[in-house]
Amino acid sequence: MAVYTQVSAEALGTFLARYDQGVLVSAKGIAEGVQNSNYLVETTADRFILTLYEEWTSTDDLPFFLAMLDHLAAAGNPVPRALPDRDGLAIQQLAGRSACLIEFLTGVSVSHPTPAQARAAGAAMGQLHAGLADFAPTRANPLGADTWRPLLERCGAGIDTIAPGLFARIEAALARVLAQWPRDLPVAAIHTDLFPDNVLMLGDRVTGVIDFYFACTDIRAYDLAVMHSAWAFDATGERYDPAIGAALIAGYESRFALSEAERAALPILAQGACLRFLLTRAWDWVNTPADALVTRKDPLAYWRRLEAYLKDDLFA
Amino acid sequence: MAVYTQVSAEALGTFLARYDQGVLVSAKGIAEGVQNSNYLVETTADRFILTLYEEWTSTDDLPFFLAMLDHLAAAGNPVPRALPDRDGLAIQQLAGRSACLIEFLTGVSVSHPTPAQARAAGAAMGQLHAGLADFAPTRANPLGADTWRPLLERCGAGIDTIAPGLFARIEAALARVLAQWPRDLPVAAIHTDLFPDNVLMLGDRVTGVIDFYFACTDIRAYDLAVMHSAWAFDATGERYDPAIGAALIAGYESRFALSEAERAALPILAQGACLRFLLTRAWDWVNTPADALVTRKDPLAYWRRLEAYLKDDLFA
Repeated sequence: MAVYTQVSAEALGTFLARYDQGVLVSAKGIAEGVQNSNYLVETTADRFILTLYEEWTSTDDLPFFLAMLDHLAAAGNPVPRALPDRDGLAIQQLAGRSACLIEFLTGVSVSHPTPAQARAAGAAMGQLHAGLADFAPTRANPLGADTWRPLLERCGAGIDTIAPGLFARIEAALARVLAQWPRDLPVAAIHTDLFPDNVLMLGDRVTGVIDFYFACTDIRAYDLAVMHSAWAFDATGERYDPAIGAALIAGYESRFALSEAERAALPILAQGACLRFLLTRAWDWVNTPADALVTRKDPLAYWRRLEAYLKDDLFA
Repeated sequence: MAVYTQVSAEALGTFLARYDQGVLVSAKGIAEGVQNSNYLVETTADRFILTLYEEWTSTDDLPFFLAMLDHLAAAGNPVPRALPDRDGLAIQQLAGRSACLIEFLTGVSVSHPTPAQARAAGAAMGQLHAGLADFAPTRANPLGADTWRPLLERCGAGIDTIAPGLFARIEAALARVLAQWPRDLPVAAIHTDLFPDNVLMLGDRVTGVIDFYFACTDIRAYDLAVMHSAWAFDATGERYDPAIGAALIAGYESRFALSEAERAALPILAQGACLRFLLTRAWDWVNTPADALVTRKDPLAYWRRLEAYLKDDLFA
């Protein structure tokens, strides 16, 4: 949530001259995205998001992300495409960074989705998966199931400063989940981070699905499991809302069918999703000083979700 | 440069319902302002800046700032007014903060002003001072000349970690400047922070003068001296650009006349301006860990400016 790279008005004016998108009228650094710098840019023609990819984003993966967005946009999904310049190039260099001029989408992220909004968001994911059925490029998931145990080990005993005995509890849960992890479900390009933050809405209508920088190739139904764990609980992970959970699945299935095997795997996929976010949050927690300006997200909010998925079949 | 207070889309929708300004279409937290949280808000009617005043902003001073902006706007200055709601109220409560819905102004801040841009910016300050000639409310300057010695003492010997012997050098300069500080120049409501950041331009035209949260009542020509020290040097303070300096003064005088006494006082006022920014930057420096996420601004960039003003009369 910061603007890491400053772009001068002069450099931005020169950058925009590469495009047929009007002349600079306004530019504000926006507090969006954790891995890159973003500006909301207005020209005499339209509004845009200018994204500069910071060093810790692998720009090797940009072509994959942009191809996925183009493919989805062509299939009618409300996703932000990177615009080509007059020479047809979408990836530029600006202020020492790779940079893209990206379509601006209206809408706001809801903090407390209603069932109608959850249904629309689930439908948006179903539409995404339908649109990606014939998308060929692949990208390995850098936070896939095979990375969780090494990540736990890298967190180390420091994880017990979050809660006594947490390391051993995660280790046991991880063993159970990995032993049951599905190996034969359909794999596809998926979003893997479709939190409410990343869905723009106006009322009950989805106007944008954004932030594809975790997109990769993995078990397709895992995407829906991530979404379920992110949307259907309160922020603390203490309270599950069955109406939201049901609306997400119903919305999804209105656009894309789950197979019997996928449906049966949702509980274990959701437990895996909880471990993935628990572990990355725990890593950030043990590596971020308590007094840092960055807000640490509570890892236990995902431990509580994990317990909820273990206790009951929330997809029944 | 951060969004300290998160406003949910739901709360923002309710807030906007108080105004006749359309329905929420988009909201992005923007990295602008160091003392408050800002959102760029779009409705079906227009774009706005939503500002939430953080605890460390004295909201007691908000009526002064808003009255000054209304007065300036009425006099034709391109300043952002806080808009009244249907009941005529401009200061609201939102997410536990005082909050204003503020006019959006187009334009961008230039990083390397040309003489033509400096002339336009100087003229904008002259127009500001003309517009404020009949503005009655007052606010003491919380960073006025009488506060510099106490601030130096609060910084203490730690200031020598910035450069050896700096405390003693500042102390001596301060004694010289305060001994000559003018006591009988015209006093008025002034901006006191008109850096290039706070002037929005399109080409050579000023489209906005923003960020009035340091505005106060002090020596009017001091405002121009602050501007001169901020605009006419490179960021390091090493290189003075006489063409920019001359353009600022000429632009100012095209709209508002300097008296002989004011003109004669500009060198000492500029030295005071250097001490003011040197001291607040030094305070931030000694109180901010070197590895903090906040970028510390180099205090010595203002020591170098001070030396330049001591060495030559840059207003001759």
